[in-house]
Amino acid sequence: MNKTMQRKYARLLVRAGVNIQKGQTLIVRAQTESYPFIELLTDEAYKAGAGDVQIEWSNQTLSRLHYRHRSVTALSRVHPWEEAKMKEESEQLPAAIRLVSEDPDGLRGINQEKLKKVRQKRYPILRPYQEQMENKYQWLVAAIPGKAWAKKMFPGLRTSAAVEKLWEAIFEACLVTKDNDPVAAWEEKDRLMEEKSRVLNACRFDYLEYKNALGTDFRCHLMPRSLWCAGGEKTLGGVFFNPNMPTEEVFTTPMKGKCEGRLVASMPLSYQGVLIEGFYIDYKDGKAVAWDAKVGKEALDGILQSDEGAKMLGELALVPVNSPISRQGLLYYCTLFDENASCHVAIGRGYTNCVEGFEDMTREELLDMGVNDSQVHVDFMIGTPDLTITGWKDGKATPVFVNGDWAI
Amino acid sequence: MNKTMQRKYARLLVRAGVNIQKGQTLIVRAQTESYPFIELLTDEAYKAGAGDVQIEWSNQTLSRLHYRHRSVTALSRVHPWEEAKMKEESEQLPAAIRLVSEDPDGLRGINQEKLKKVRQKRYPILRPYQEQMENKYQWLVAAIPGKAWAKKMFPGLRTSAAVEKLWEAIFEACLVTKDNDPVAAWEEKDRLMEEKSRVLNACRFDYLEYKNALGTDFRCHLMPRSLWCAGGEKTLGGVFFNPNMPTEEVFTTPMKGKCEGRLVASMPLSYQGVLIEGFYIDYKDGKAVAWDAKVGKEALDGILQSDEGAKMLGELALVPVNSPISRQGLLYYCTLFDENASCHVAIGRGYTNCVEGFEDMTREELLDMGVNDSQVHVDFMIGTPDLTITGWKDGKATPVFVNGDWAI
Repeated sequence: MNKTMQRKYARLLVRAGVNIQKGQTLIVRAQTESYPFIELLTDEAYKAGAGDVQIEWSNQTLSRLHYRHRSVTALSRVHPWEEAKMKEESEQLPAAIRLVSEDPDGLRGINQEKLKKVRQKRYPILRPYQEQMENKYQWLVAAIPGKAWAKKMFPGLRTSAAVEKLWEAIFEACLVTKDNDPVAAWEEKDRLMEEKSRVLNACRFDYLEYKNALGTDFRCHLMPRSLWCAGGEKTLGGVFFNPNMPTEEVFTTPMKGKCEGRLVASMPLSYQGVLIEGFYIDYKDGKAVAWDAKVGKEALDGILQSDEGAKMLGELALVPVNSPISRQGLLYYCTLFDENASCHVAIGRGYTNCVEGFEDMTREELLDMGVNDSQVHVDFMIGTPDLTITGWKDGKATPVFVNGDWAI
Repeated sequence: MNKTMQRKYARLLVRAGVNIQKGQTLIVRAQTESYPFIELLTDEAYKAGAGDVQIEWSNQTLSRLHYRHRSVTALSRVHPWEEAKMKEESEQLPAAIRLVSEDPDGLRGINQEKLKKVRQKRYPILRPYQEQMENKYQWLVAAIPGKAWAKKMFPGLRTSAAVEKLWEAIFEACLVTKDNDPVAAWEEKDRLMEEKSRVLNACRFDYLEYKNALGTDFRCHLMPRSLWCAGGEKTLGGVFFNPNMPTEEVFTTPMKGKCEGRLVASMPLSYQGVLIEGFYIDYKDGKAVAWDAKVGKEALDGILQSDEGAKMLGELALVPVNSPISRQGLLYYCTLFDENASCHVAIGRGYTNCVEGFEDMTREELLDMGVNDSQVHVDFMIGTPDLTITGWKDGKATPVFVNGDWAI
């Protein structure tokens, strides 16, 4: 029975997710332990018309070994063939699905300074290809259970039961039920999400103000042309796709370098296999100036010190505390889910397509206008049941969130 | 306990197998279902001094899907990045381990004509890189259990028990016991194998004659400088390694185009996921002129029609019917094992390093001398308990095998 549901889910990812086009190549990035699901997914991708399906396998245990045994120089090396592969991708624009299933804490104990240096060395080489592809291809981040991840979420259960339980949670979060057509369910969902973003876009706030008892006291300016987005989006070529499954957020790109105050995390953050817990960041003149974490401080340092842009913000996202995923009452230790149970912001790179008229602007024009640039884009959760968010426009206040829920 | 044995086996493969050198890259080619063993192997490779360990994952179920859904043109395409990768390999000469674990019959039903065409189209592109690496790097073919393979061998057992049983058989065949040092056991084995080849090399036979009641009646000439090899060998750079684990064969490269008579297969042959059973091949003037198979005829056609060289032979190998692997009494449906339980020959490409003085000759000179060239190299088993092999030198007969066992 679970196999039938998994097949339904696979079909959803290739159709309502990346919306694979006839003859288009699909690249799937997944952990080796996920291979039985990848077999289903590949079959569904070909059935949906994919011209080729290429799998890029990872394995977190092997990543640990590589990081432990190899030097920064060896780890940072981008092989000529890797660059050739990226060049080909940036020209041919395959659709891409990344399937999260890693242990949220699986790289604990790995030297964070080393990880940061490797990212910093590889980024300048990879960046031109990433930028060339920006907004041009369909991509999707979705999840499937990994054994260690499932055990982390349900430590009281045997592994097989924990995996089963996590499958059920993912199906529920992604609107896959025994009797429905999930592709149709997502069409309806995308319609509702678009309505929400339309209401916010009509307000044209100058800045948002966040406050709660946890200690968040924060103001962040928007760009005059900041656009609130939600649910699916379109490639520049006009192909509609859903980049995240699940998704509950209405989000935009703020004005870089124009925020101040304290943001206190309301949930743990798993970043590249390490959990960061009990942390806050203080911003002044738009930049992170002080921060601390009860657990994983070194990883937080690593993120915020990646480059100049990592000190600034790239996303504001609004999610009510009673979102469907929030109502599941689960802590996933996985941003893809936890960000959809809580208001959040993103450290680092902004979305260039959350700007009115972005289709007709160059990347440079968008950055000049106030979209932040960085090698990192890391969401962290700040929503609480007492969070208030006020939108200010020409000195006039409009309640956006009251008690963690929509007030607009 | 099995985990401890697996680790011992992994250590054997990287040390006595490819004999990884300090700082050298190791490439491992394996099926995704093997990932738990690959984690052990990677750890052992780094401990043995590998500078980098790269895994190239395959998945037979995905191969089926690719072959079914994609055109010959799409399947044959060698991406520029694939070529860049091979170029890098041919220059940097990493060690390579291929771990067999596939279902011997897992690609049954796939169009064999399509498979052949894909091989034919890819080969001319890959060939220069393969030739450039020939005899220059350490390589190893070894095996680990795959679920479908284990069930094929032990159909009466539950999957987990079948896998366990196949592990035990592999450990035994590869001299890994609970108490021994398998690396030392292989040193001793290599010494004994070398002695056997020395005896044969002293004979300088003009040709070998094979006969048994199954219908084999066959004569095959050697080159004047054909060299019998066995066990480990050396790269041109002087690194000793064992290219097959297990191995029981003493083998050489015959003179191409100089054989005649019938060879009858004594065991099924699994080639690229398809079983070929109950077959024979008739040779005249050194070339296959007629053949038939009770099962898998299309796959046999595909092999023999790959190119001109596929009509000729590239290897003669001698294995007594009482070899340690033969005594296991198992049919592995896997050439790596079955070839070590039976005398065999290889269709196609010959080994250039089974020629006296090959170190100082160009590839062209070696081919001119009589080493066969082909895009395929496919062993098939002809040994039986009544097989006699006679070595002829200047009209004088010397019994080499009598009743399937050494007579020399």
